Amino acid sequence: MAISGILRPGFVQIRVLDMPAAVEYYTKRVGLHQVCEGPDGRVYLKAADEFDHHSIVLRRAEHAGVDLMSFKCLDDADLDQYEKRIVEYGIAVDHVPAGEQPGVGRRIGFTIPSGHRIELYAHADQSDPKPYSHNPHVWSVEPHGMAARRFDHALLYGPNIDQVTDFFVKVLDFRLAERVDMPDGLLAVWLTCGMKAHDIAFVKYPEPGKLHHISFELENWQAVGNAADIITHYDISIDIGPTRHGITRGQTIYFFDPSGNRNEVFAGGYTYYPDSPTRTWDETEVGKGIFYYERKMNDAFLSVVT
Amino acid sequence: MAISGILRPGFVQIRVLDMPAAVEYYTKRVGLHQVCEGPDGRVYLKAADEFDHHSIVLRRAEHAGVDLMSFKCLDDADLDQYEKRIVEYGIAVDHVPAGEQPGVGRRIGFTIPSGHRIELYAHADQSDPKPYSHNPHVWSVEPHGMAARRFDHALLYGPNIDQVTDFFVKVLDFRLAERVDMPDGLLAVWLTCGMKAHDIAFVKYPEPGKLHHISFELENWQAVGNAADIITHYDISIDIGPTRHGITRGQTIYFFDPSGNRNEVFAGGYTYYPDSPTRTWDETEVGKGIFYYERKMNDAFLSVVT
Amino acid sequence: MAISGILRPGFVQIRVLDMPAAVEYYTKRVGLHQVCEGPDGRVYLKAADEFDHHSIVLRRAEHAGVDLMSFKCLDDADLDQYEKRIVEYGIAVDHVPAGEQPGVGRRIGFTIPSGHRIELYAHADQSDPKPYSHNPHVWSVEPHGMAARRFDHALLYGPNIDQVTDFFVKVLDFRLAERVDMPDGLLAVWLTCGMKAHDIAFVKYPEPGKLHHISFELENWQAVGNAADIITHYDISIDIGPTRHGITRGQTIYFFDPSGNRNEVFAGGYTYYPDSPTRTWDETEVGKGIFYYERKMNDAFLSVVT
Amino acid sequence: MAISGILRPGFVQIRVLDMPAAVEYYTKRVGLHQVCEGPDGRVYLKAADEFDHHSIVLRRAEHAGVDLMSFKCLDDADLDQYEKRIVEYGIAVDHVPAGEQPGVGRRIGFTIPSGHRIELYAHADQSDPKPYSHNPHVWSVEPHGMAARRFDHALLYGPNIDQVTDFFVKVLDFRLAERVDMPDGLLAVWLTCGMKAHDIAFVKYPEPGKLHHISFELENWQAVGNAADIITHYDISIDIGPTRHGITRGQTIYFFDPSGNRNEVFAGGYTYYPDSPTRTWDETEVGKGIFYYERKMNDAFLSVVT
Repeated sequence: MAISGILRPGFVQIRVLDMPAAVEYYTKRVGLHQVCEGPDGRVYLKAADEFDHHSIVLRRAEHAGVDLMSFKCLDDADLDQYEKRIVEYGIAVDHVPAGEQPGVGRRIGFTIPSGHRIELYAHADQSDPKPYSHNPHVWSVEPHGMAARRFDHALLYGPNIDQVTDFFVKVLDFRLAERVDMPDGLLAVWLTCGMKAHDIAFVKYPEPGKLHHISFELENWQAVGNAADIITHYDISIDIGPTRHGITRGQTIYFFDPSGNRNEVFAGGYTYYPDSPTRTWDETEVGKGIFYYERKMNDAFLSVVT
Repeated sequence: MAISGILRPGFVQIRVLDMPAAVEYYTKRVGLHQVCEGPDGRVYLKAADEFDHHSIVLRRAEHAGVDLMSFKCLDDADLDQYEKRIVEYGIAVDHVPAGEQPGVGRRIGFTIPSGHRIELYAHADQSDPKPYSHNPHVWSVEPHGMAARRFDHALLYGPNIDQVTDFFVKVLDFRLAERVDMPDGLLAVWLTCGMKAHDIAFVKYPEPGKLHHISFELENWQAVGNAADIITHYDISIDIGPTRHGITRGQTIYFFDPSGNRNEVFAGGYTYYPDSPTRTWDETEVGKGIFYYERKMNDAFLSVVT
Repeated sequence: MAISGILRPGFVQIRVLDMPAAVEYYTKRVGLHQVCEGPDGRVYLKAADEFDHHSIVLRRAEHAGVDLMSFKCLDDADLDQYEKRIVEYGIAVDHVPAGEQPGVGRRIGFTIPSGHRIELYAHADQSDPKPYSHNPHVWSVEPHGMAARRFDHALLYGPNIDQVTDFFVKVLDFRLAERVDMPDGLLAVWLTCGMKAHDIAFVKYPEPGKLHHISFELENWQAVGNAADIITHYDISIDIGPTRHGITRGQTIYFFDPSGNRNEVFAGGYTYYPDSPTRTWDETEVGKGIFYYERKMNDAFLSVVT
Repeated sequence: MAISGILRPGFVQIRVLDMPAAVEYYTKRVGLHQVCEGPDGRVYLKAADEFDHHSIVLRRAEHAGVDLMSFKCLDDADLDQYEKRIVEYGIAVDHVPAGEQPGVGRRIGFTIPSGHRIELYAHADQSDPKPYSHNPHVWSVEPHGMAARRFDHALLYGPNIDQVTDFFVKVLDFRLAERVDMPDGLLAVWLTCGMKAHDIAFVKYPEPGKLHHISFELENWQAVGNAADIITHYDISIDIGPTRHGITRGQTIYFFDPSGNRNEVFAGGYTYYPDSPTRTWDETEVGKGIFYYERKMNDAFLSVVT
């Protein structure tokens, strides 16, 4: 493919109530690596199979939730191109200078109609541990904890998801992999900028700017089972799982970090191509779409967010 | 990403000595589905998780091997764009009319410096069984045999792989995911047109136009083990495996179809992005690159082709 | 070990409302093999990795549930020895002649204080498909459906489980692998006659002679996931899972056959030895014991039986 | 079952050339736990899922190999009973006092016709980490390295294996699970004292008292794959695998500790019962019996021992 523009989710910045508890949890249980702590106390983490400097930013705050979700672009020129298109679409863009986060170049930021802040950037330093690239072993550091391989996507809750979808497709070159249409309108969308079943997803919700979960990819269903053992052993609060999504086919567990932010670990999911049909779901089978084995939504899915 | 041009491997046409034996093998053992037989006796097969009409074409012949490898483009206009670029690069292009293969639109074809015929096309009908797209189950037909999910890539042997690499990168917009450099020059390349670790690969070989293997993707290492049980139970000739490639990280088995064409089933492999570094291998560790567990090449890897 | 007496669960006879539906379900979905149909309409099934004639007997009836659970002894003389001990313990024994079930020798039967009928026998013919024993392949027939490998155990509900435990330990030479003690007394016991974590289990329940589930062993957690896909695809009624038991450590799904009899498929579980301590559970963690991931019992566990 | 006598393999004492290298290897790579070091420098190790004090004893020596293989009996009285039977069979028995190894009671020892020393004992202290027994988690310490769950069995090489088999069956109450008969006689036997496919095995070899491998059990095929990744990453010398045995069906890797003692990690294998037929292999398929996927023995299998 001739590929340009937005490549993938870059990093997500979330708010945590207790930084040491959060760092211990994300490094020892989820299996991330701490890269550094910034002068303002933010902590930067990465998964082992990522080359970029970090993918998770923890910020100490009074309330849990998500500050921003970012995407990495292929070229610096993409930032100008997208800024132009975003502004033309009618959304204001601001600028974050290089270095506001360690190891990350200049960013552009904007607020989408669901109330979430999105940022784009094109440069990230590499930091360790990262995959080897000369005579590489299959891993550079022995996997530990849940053995998260990458920060994969976020599911965000807010209003106006029709407009959000229109914006992501028309302006940011995403494609609509799956959608749930209920009798009263569009309930949820799964959007991809590449070949994964989703890079970001939205569910309709009255309050803007909410986080449903951030998601980490694992190797396979066995790793999902191992993660479930860890969750119970360390008394981590669980939402649901191990189970499977009909939507994206991901094998999954939902659980909560010590601040109450929902996490997901998942494995599997189909390969998406630009000529794949959009998978569609209606009210008769939406439960199976969300949780393929239970075949009904649990209450928490639609109501518990940060 | 803004994606255009070549999306993925489309179909590969291979030669088989005994058509009924080949059909039984690919449908019952590998787990493909027979779509149809053409008026000239060619048989068209597909893997269950593919939307397109077919991905494997079997042609009865006196000698095993590969007739052609094709890639699917996003738009019909891509065919004209690529034809122009290929001809400008100095390679002749011919045209195959729509319908030469059932369910496939017009194709352009050309011979690369390794002696292999490559084709591009932009249209394929859908045929059954294919993944559902409305309220979809995780599969539409219960997996059987080795449960191949897709035709994934081919590894081809021939001369001039430096030129082949230059052509795929400059003209067909592929990227070089991995390469093996030996003291006497480039030995092998793994090229991707998307986010898979490879869509096609080449190893230097004096004789042009040879096939090392066609590869089918499985769900995970457990499926690779199940495939190995099937291979022994049905007395299918095995080359090596279950083992793992250092290159691409794929968990793999090499074995032979009844005509002697090498097949691979594999699982896993990293996600490639356009900003991923090219993984490089040298003569000190090439054995580990090819077979990560054995850490040395078996003789057959470099010599047995069709 | 010097081993004598009761070896393992032999067969269980359950009642089904619709025989053709039951046979289709147990053969195509659970993956059993039909051995034969008896002159009285009972249908005999077996799992592929069992040498004995059958392990599941289906009887057409107006109400679902279990008729009897049987165990196989090593020698015919064991039947006399156990009859003597059972009668001395104060429980009446009756005799079932060889051939009452095809392929099974003479049996002795008795009713335990929970109201269940238990039988012992020492002879079973072999029937096909069974594991090979000369130059054996790892399987003789390619696994299908959920790929049940053996009928593993039953969980029965009824009163007087203290007495039942005493009887199984003192008279039938079982050992108590795990127990749940609640403030109001013994809630549940897991009993083994060999090295499995359990061969039969009982939960205290006011009504006698009830069936909670019959259980089939699968290869591993991956097979449990595959079974869950099958359950949803064929719209089989599910109770809970995939999840894990703290008790026995089994990775499990509970679901229902077309007559409403609960089935389990499970994998894993520790190896029990006669010098292993009895694992004990109390009211503070019993939820985790029953469902290790959910960490609480679902209502159906204690109330839905046949 | 009424179970008495020999329960299972207890511990094996092996000789290592470099004690710190051996301890690092067995604890960090194989995933065992160091229990203690004795006053004579022997080091005692255990796998996490064992209750007994230790299962592996390392002794510093000039030559690698096995000092002795022991089995644990159910009762102290079993030692007297077996001593009587062994002496009556014509084999001399000596006595090792309690405390010769920390945490282990009195032992009886003897040399079998293959030249190996075998010991029996009935008492072992418990030591940590061991499985929990009150409200137990599925593991007490997070698994690490290859995550060996137990010392499972040893394969020994020596002469007179017909006599060894006769002795184990008649005197020690083992059963013959599998055997390989070649045109020139019995080549190999797999003997079980319980429900595992084997607890000890012998291959005919001219030199007495040799060790082919000691074996550790893993959870499943996925764990076998993870172990293979570890083997290559840490440059551990490999013999063969991941592959599968036809004999016992175990999914396996053979590799070498730093002193050259062969280790195995394996998963799976059928459940053996006293009424299971002895699986038999002949010269036409013995290769498939040893290595089910390769279907031929590698030279090292029959010749490399310590």
